[in-house]
Amino acid sequence: MEGGTSRKALIATRAVAVAADVDHAFDLLLSVPGDPRARLYEAMRHAAIGGGKRLRPLLVQAAGDLFNISRESALRVGLAVECIHVYSLVHDDLPAMDDDDMRRGRPTIHKAFDEATAILAGDCLHDLAFEVLADEQTHADPFVRIELVKALALSSGPAGMAGGQMMDLQAEGASFDLATVTRLQQLKTGALIGFCVDAAAIMARIPPEARVSLHGYARDIGLAFQIADDLLDVEGDAALAGKALGKDAAAGKETFVSLLGVERAREQACLLVEQAKAHLHAFGGEADLLRAIADYIVERDR
Amino acid sequence: MEGGTSRKALIATRAVAVAADVDHAFDLLLSVPGDPRARLYEAMRHAAIGGGKRLRPLLVQAAGDLFNISRESALRVGLAVECIHVYSLVHDDLPAMDDDDMRRGRPTIHKAFDEATAILAGDCLHDLAFEVLADEQTHADPFVRIELVKALALSSGPAGMAGGQMMDLQAEGASFDLATVTRLQQLKTGALIGFCVDAAAIMARIPPEARVSLHGYARDIGLAFQIADDLLDVEGDAALAGKALGKDAAAGKETFVSLLGVERAREQACLLVEQAKAHLHAFGGEADLLRAIADYIVERDR
Repeated sequence: MEGGTSRKALIATRAVAVAADVDHAFDLLLSVPGDPRARLYEAMRHAAIGGGKRLRPLLVQAAGDLFNISRESALRVGLAVECIHVYSLVHDDLPAMDDDDMRRGRPTIHKAFDEATAILAGDCLHDLAFEVLADEQTHADPFVRIELVKALALSSGPAGMAGGQMMDLQAEGASFDLATVTRLQQLKTGALIGFCVDAAAIMARIPPEARVSLHGYARDIGLAFQIADDLLDVEGDAALAGKALGKDAAAGKETFVSLLGVERAREQACLLVEQAKAHLHAFGGEADLLRAIADYIVERDR
Repeated sequence: MEGGTSRKALIATRAVAVAADVDHAFDLLLSVPGDPRARLYEAMRHAAIGGGKRLRPLLVQAAGDLFNISRESALRVGLAVECIHVYSLVHDDLPAMDDDDMRRGRPTIHKAFDEATAILAGDCLHDLAFEVLADEQTHADPFVRIELVKALALSSGPAGMAGGQMMDLQAEGASFDLATVTRLQQLKTGALIGFCVDAAAIMARIPPEARVSLHGYARDIGLAFQIADDLLDVEGDAALAGKALGKDAAAGKETFVSLLGVERAREQACLLVEQAKAHLHAFGGEADLLRAIADYIVERDR
């Protein structure tokens, strides 16, 4: 399968299936208890169900294709990553952080509920990620599960996503250069994207030294994803995006677009996508979904 | 060893050693990087180092005594629990939650730094708990480590500590009865205390059905601890406690003291401590630290 059309069809089919699976799994995991904790579960459901591109769970499935990882295992890992991604959005949207009122076309959690509930709902989704990974439904081998826990904790903590968010908080008026913005984004979005691909290799017991090309793929699509995000922030449609746009420029933050200009940023994103796909040269059709995701990342409109 | 004096000496010696070990371990784990994430690590250090009774790490050591768990393994598990405990304090102190300015005699994290940094520092300590548990330094057997991760995620999430905090947020003016306050506290403080004791049994591969008396001990000291806290909130010395007191009454929240009165609350706490120690009747001197902790819980002045 080489044509752009068939790859688009492939990604559309798989993305729809993954999104439905993720929603269904969250629905089962987050049944609302009949006590004063109900509000907490309602907030977790509002945050976790029925929104987003589910790019990260799709990436786990796509990387799983390379090693014949079962759809069930890949779904559970994708669910755990999505827990981390969603918790980080809930906390990042808080008034003390990015202060956003809308997310995925709906009120953010602190708007729909209140700030205290948003903080706690984020914290609980954070726990849920590790609870999901630790369960034997995710993988029969406890060694694999503990390696997944270790890798996810590293990707989401101060040496990963949260460290990137800390840098982002300081970006306002700090005049970061291209190297610093790249480092920031490799942490803030790249670390978790890297985990998605790495998780499949962990489940397949592929030794770390044999994962170099996969890590290269993840690094390149992670940066391409962020450049595309920066372009959407400048040129995108807020209604399609379901959130406020143009915020980086308003806050005086340097981005790939402010540093490179629109044209060079777009070229750079396309270059990264080609480079990402080149990392997959040793694979055949089993890597088609990974290739399709790389293309999708710069073609998306939200 | 039966006398009160020798038990007090025992707890003093072990508590000092555990507190020093925990501080030293946090110091090593949280070395400050030379980049814009420095502020995040400084905030984590401010929250995690040099404060608190370290009751939870001490409990892990005490339960570990029953099964000859190595001091190193018990320390690592205690460190993970303390990460969760400290993260929860950082988030609970936020203006949107309990809005506290002082903790352990020092400014709270959002006062010493800012709210965004406090949210992120809490999130990062949350990750650190699972990173510590997942590391092979904690225990050689990956099955044991994954069981620890599972148990900790359950104790800290919506079915444990965070669920209790959600109930606590709704306690204001809700006129909770004794059964509801008991349930709230079993979640808010009891779940994590239960984990401390359970963790030792997990490391010793004691089957769940053989942990009944240990769970009874944990449940009883957990409630006694909370009643003692409620008594300190009414009668304690804010300077010794290192935080504001009298907050529950001011907020119109029902507590064990408001529902039972001071005298009956104190009697109930002592009864629970005796009951907790009775659960340990099958153990000999190896349970002396657990017994000493039960006594300490109602005798402490902070």
